[in-house]
Amino acid sequence: MKIFAYGIRDDEKPALQGWETAHPEIEVAYTQELLTTESAKEAAGSDGVVVYQQLPYTREILQALADEGIHQLSLRNVGIDNIDLKAAKELGFKISNVAAYSPNAIAEHAAIQLARVLRRSKELDAKVAKHDLRWAPTIGREVRMQTVGIIGTGRIGRVLIQILQGFGAKIVAYDIFKNPDIDKQGLYVDSLDELYAQSDVISVHVPSVKENIHMLNKESIAKMKDGAILVNVARGDLMDTDDVIAALDSGKLSGLVMDVYENEVGIFNEDWEGKKFPDARLADLIARPNVLVTPHTAFYTTKAVLEMVHQSFDAAVAFVNGTETRNTVKY
Amino acid sequence: MKIFAYGIRDDEKPALQGWETAHPEIEVAYTQELLTTESAKEAAGSDGVVVYQQLPYTREILQALADEGIHQLSLRNVGIDNIDLKAAKELGFKISNVAAYSPNAIAEHAAIQLARVLRRSKELDAKVAKHDLRWAPTIGREVRMQTVGIIGTGRIGRVLIQILQGFGAKIVAYDIFKNPDIDKQGLYVDSLDELYAQSDVISVHVPSVKENIHMLNKESIAKMKDGAILVNVARGDLMDTDDVIAALDSGKLSGLVMDVYENEVGIFNEDWEGKKFPDARLADLIARPNVLVTPHTAFYTTKAVLEMVHQSFDAAVAFVNGTETRNTVKY
Repeated sequence: MKIFAYGIRDDEKPALQGWETAHPEIEVAYTQELLTTESAKEAAGSDGVVVYQQLPYTREILQALADEGIHQLSLRNVGIDNIDLKAAKELGFKISNVAAYSPNAIAEHAAIQLARVLRRSKELDAKVAKHDLRWAPTIGREVRMQTVGIIGTGRIGRVLIQILQGFGAKIVAYDIFKNPDIDKQGLYVDSLDELYAQSDVISVHVPSVKENIHMLNKESIAKMKDGAILVNVARGDLMDTDDVIAALDSGKLSGLVMDVYENEVGIFNEDWEGKKFPDARLADLIARPNVLVTPHTAFYTTKAVLEMVHQSFDAAVAFVNGTETRNTVKY
Repeated sequence: MKIFAYGIRDDEKPALQGWETAHPEIEVAYTQELLTTESAKEAAGSDGVVVYQQLPYTREILQALADEGIHQLSLRNVGIDNIDLKAAKELGFKISNVAAYSPNAIAEHAAIQLARVLRRSKELDAKVAKHDLRWAPTIGREVRMQTVGIIGTGRIGRVLIQILQGFGAKIVAYDIFKNPDIDKQGLYVDSLDELYAQSDVISVHVPSVKENIHMLNKESIAKMKDGAILVNVARGDLMDTDDVIAALDSGKLSGLVMDVYENEVGIFNEDWEGKKFPDARLADLIARPNVLVTPHTAFYTTKAVLEMVHQSFDAAVAFVNGTETRNTVKY
């Protein structure tokens, strides 16, 4: 059996080598190139391909794979919106993705960054860097003294709850779908308004479906405690960025963690050093001492990358063997 | 009853006001000045004094208080080594300190900073600040994937264990005094050598008694895993700084968290910006991307300061009432 992988990055190679070592019976080949109608030919003789790219998987590309006798596509990531599913169906493609590679990667990032905002770590780091080693006035707050409101108790929200409980924080949670374990712990409040009223820190972990777009806005912020801290490592459009900035300016919000941004596409994962930065609003947020911006890197850990590689290769092998994994995409 | 407090800093005022509100029957007066033979006169008519300073409490100062009819001293901090205890005894002084103001402040700081080193947060922050928003190659590691060795399972070590267990990390612990709860959990290993061999991250929480001085040195580091991370938020002299730097240079250690430094007295809690920095070795550590230095601020939280103020005032009142608290210093 032979599996061919496209778009392999340097940081994926240790995970790939680990998988190869564990599966000596399977021939693995790969390229750094993305999958195109051209590069599809490199997979000739393979049973399945493993892929990860933002570029669309068009009908032409899928046809090029089918021409090589390949009718399966195993994504190393979750999103399937760049696949021409109609063409895939007509060409008889089996598709898998990696739905959950590491909820902990994201939850840990949220916990660390919110603790840093409480601790005024960006201000303190800047002082130390310029050799101002005075404590005052950079006094911190402790996580254990906070009530943290978790909106959305899916995998990531639940791991975050566990981490914050380890710190000794008080948790209140809200979700339209109640998780039995969180419910048994008595953590749910009955409404978002209640969560807003009680929380010192609010972290969102919900999908960006229509009802959630801009849920963090002028109206909801007005219901929060003075000096609340917002954490968004989920989706940029959950937050009305202008409203959040106004609340930071007025002091209504005392801090912000953002790993995502409404207009991040085309800005994040690019190097703008020495170039004209395309988004003045984002530049302003990055410069603020009480705002921690990361460019959608919450997921980016060795464990997450290992899961993305291993689960996608496992799914590719399962397809060849005529079996399936939990990662099969029903479409 | 009247209590007089010396050396009150701005960051202590909210805690002080909170205590006053809760104790309307007690008259409180305070000054920013430290306690000297001169300022002792300001306490005239008071029943007790509350103090916090690095300056010595000399026989002359204690005599000046006694001349005002005051025979009790309530420290807002822990250290009593700057008190002339012989004079205090002869003058019949009762003394209290605040032995444990917030183990969580220090344990939380250790957890946050070690998670940051794993996550390469200093490198990533620097990239974001200069608008380099690329992920690679700044991939992080997850806390849950680490084995963390905790040396010393007193109050702070135990809180740190709880926090790290919330993250899902594996804990191994060592202490010559076994804590029953940690023992019941089966976390103790039999020797430091075992702890060094198993741990990805090692955090020390022991006093700087003779046997512990420079316990983190060339020999012990050689017994650690390649790429281990050291965390020292306890005492600077637990670590042979030159040996640790050599191990960072060779890559044997992949990171370091330090809130304390062997030569910190006279350097920390001073502003060196624009001045000649007095310690080239410390400047080098501060500049390293995989080293997080803070100037002995792990304790510095609103909760810790509140405890320092409230517990010291409570102890002062108890002395006046002829009772005692757990903070009475036996000397």
